[in-house]
Amino acid sequence: MAELDIADVFNAAKVLKDVARHPRLIGPTKINPEAQVYLKPENLQHTGAFKLRGAYYKISQLTPEEKAKGVIACSAGNHAQGVALSATANGIKSLICLPAGAPISKVEATKALGAEVCMVPGVYDDAYAKAVELQKEHGYTFVHPFNDPLVIAGQGTIGLEIVEEMPDVDAVVVPIGGGGLIAGVAYAVKTLNPNVKVYGVQAEGAPSMAKSLKDKERVHLDSVNTIADGIAVKEPGDLTYELCKEYVDEVVTVNDDEIAAAILKLIEQQKLVAEGAGAVSVAAVMFNKLPVKGKKVVCVVSGGNIDVTSLNRVITRGLVKSGRDCTIGINLSDKPGQLSKVCSVLGDLGANIISVQHERNSTNTQINGCTLRVEMETRNNDHIKEIKKGLTSAGFEVVS
Amino acid sequence: MAELDIADVFNAAKVLKDVARHPRLIGPTKINPEAQVYLKPENLQHTGAFKLRGAYYKISQLTPEEKAKGVIACSAGNHAQGVALSATANGIKSLICLPAGAPISKVEATKALGAEVCMVPGVYDDAYAKAVELQKEHGYTFVHPFNDPLVIAGQGTIGLEIVEEMPDVDAVVVPIGGGGLIAGVAYAVKTLNPNVKVYGVQAEGAPSMAKSLKDKERVHLDSVNTIADGIAVKEPGDLTYELCKEYVDEVVTVNDDEIAAAILKLIEQQKLVAEGAGAVSVAAVMFNKLPVKGKKVVCVVSGGNIDVTSLNRVITRGLVKSGRDCTIGINLSDKPGQLSKVCSVLGDLGANIISVQHERNSTNTQINGCTLRVEMETRNNDHIKEIKKGLTSAGFEVVS
Repeated sequence: MAELDIADVFNAAKVLKDVARHPRLIGPTKINPEAQVYLKPENLQHTGAFKLRGAYYKISQLTPEEKAKGVIACSAGNHAQGVALSATANGIKSLICLPAGAPISKVEATKALGAEVCMVPGVYDDAYAKAVELQKEHGYTFVHPFNDPLVIAGQGTIGLEIVEEMPDVDAVVVPIGGGGLIAGVAYAVKTLNPNVKVYGVQAEGAPSMAKSLKDKERVHLDSVNTIADGIAVKEPGDLTYELCKEYVDEVVTVNDDEIAAAILKLIEQQKLVAEGAGAVSVAAVMFNKLPVKGKKVVCVVSGGNIDVTSLNRVITRGLVKSGRDCTIGINLSDKPGQLSKVCSVLGDLGANIISVQHERNSTNTQINGCTLRVEMETRNNDHIKEIKKGLTSAGFEVVS
Repeated sequence: MAELDIADVFNAAKVLKDVARHPRLIGPTKINPEAQVYLKPENLQHTGAFKLRGAYYKISQLTPEEKAKGVIACSAGNHAQGVALSATANGIKSLICLPAGAPISKVEATKALGAEVCMVPGVYDDAYAKAVELQKEHGYTFVHPFNDPLVIAGQGTIGLEIVEEMPDVDAVVVPIGGGGLIAGVAYAVKTLNPNVKVYGVQAEGAPSMAKSLKDKERVHLDSVNTIADGIAVKEPGDLTYELCKEYVDEVVTVNDDEIAAAILKLIEQQKLVAEGAGAVSVAAVMFNKLPVKGKKVVCVVSGGNIDVTSLNRVITRGLVKSGRDCTIGINLSDKPGQLSKVCSVLGDLGANIISVQHERNSTNTQINGCTLRVEMETRNNDHIKEIKKGLTSAGFEVVS
């Protein structure tokens, strides 16, 4: 790669020394009992994601003339905040184009970091087009979210830090959206120690880099669909694609349920909040998608910017999947005393009832019957089976 | 204090060097815009809380005879896991007495760390009595959760680490339950640098140390009631009380809403999961309970073991309090088309509807009317006012 030099990555590390946070690796964790799994917690980074590193380094390297004109970027997420904070810290102007549907919270966070915000009607591609147009019109420097050697060098500092803190690391696992993070990390890690494996992870619903590497050419996905919105990218960059082809050992995918389970595991076991994109590395190791048995592995948790409403949903889904929250239907004849009997059975079996609903108008029920929907806290899936069996034994008809 | 020596704290630090995790201070944060607030994230500690430090150090100092007999403790929470892990790591037996109502998850976690568990009918006090009885019967060493000089020395290592990492710290803010953590931290910090302020924080519903210091004698509270169950302690220890009297500058209290807001702030802003007890220090700084304006402050976030069901509740409450989740009632005449009009008004005003319920049988409604309960995501309390005004202007009767 003529465009990237390890000296750039070291220089980025120097520039970022007092700018980025440098939390230590966390671990060993029990994320996969058959491996020693450590976490590189970039969710604890300023702005809640690694993006600051690349954006800051890029901006720090602009000429005085470029700085005077300011920078522009297009993003509805972490990149926007990374650029905004970096520009403000360097005393220069930043303009961020966002698609009109971007969450209020992200827009406000970007403004609070000192950026000017331009809301563009339409979707991401429209906002991108507008940013390119404004860039040409005003001579701003465009800060690409991933396909830029300086941005990649900035993200690569994560690779340096991992190898420095854990010289005997066997493998590093990295989320992939456009590929800027893994390109930098893989380049840095492999340059320092070619024996370390570098694995990439994408969401099953947005496998642009995985598919590109398999097809041996950059592919453009028509659509992407995943809870990991931070890595829902339709097409890798040419630079990031080439770097991944050369330095990344394998790219795997994880589905939304696996991502949700990883988010929940990080909350419960590690007390860390990760966004979907940030948790895919953990999901891949947790669900044995990678050959890490017996190895010392570092998962990069790339970001933690998940809104709390989504977090609530993920937690709930994770609880349901692991059998700790369960809703069952019970057909009842609609007469007094029935609910009391059901509750008594459930109480004896150790289920904690959260809510109860009577459905009288369901077409599934007899005209003088009803379906009772009971939501409860349970211990695990075996406990749920036991509860259903207990209800059946007591003469109730369990319908789901 | 004849019973505690700074050499013990340094010795504890040596013993804990390769046992405890040492995550760096996190910050500066924006928890209070008028101060430089850093976090000492003991929620990232093994077992999710600082308790490991004191328990491990205490156990490491037992004689071979004491080790052969094993240890006993009484706890339904973090201390149980700290003792279990420490005993197992030292190759000795541990028995933990828990009140029968202890959450399944905590019981399982304690067993998984290698402890034997004794479920005692009744509440904490009953479990404590049983532990004392078993201790006498079998000659186990009792590992007190706070009132023990070696346990206090172990917790004091947190104070050493803070002063070492941030020599110019102005103030340290520490949660107080029984007082073991703050006794150790205050003793260590003040011994190294008497100019650093050490503040304690208790829950308003469990102010045993605050009241004791005010009354100038140890008080016993009849009952405690707070979401910060980890610090719901009825009476300080004699040793911890004396140390607090000598070394702690001030003790303040925070209420449950403030604690919930602090938990939410830590999740959203710092990507950290804290339990109620762990977040009181942050709550105190966030709600200006302490004279820290312009100061460099470290809040000890002492633990992160909150079950996800409680976490969901805290998040929801926090969203409601900050005006980001809102349920309003609207009286309607019960005819087709009404809901559509309401939805249209709400949509135009930028509210995202989450759920809708029709109440037909409420005594508040006319016989041919109903009350619509709409839950929605909103931006803030001003946005809610705007929405209510918009509905009223459109001719709807808003009832709550």
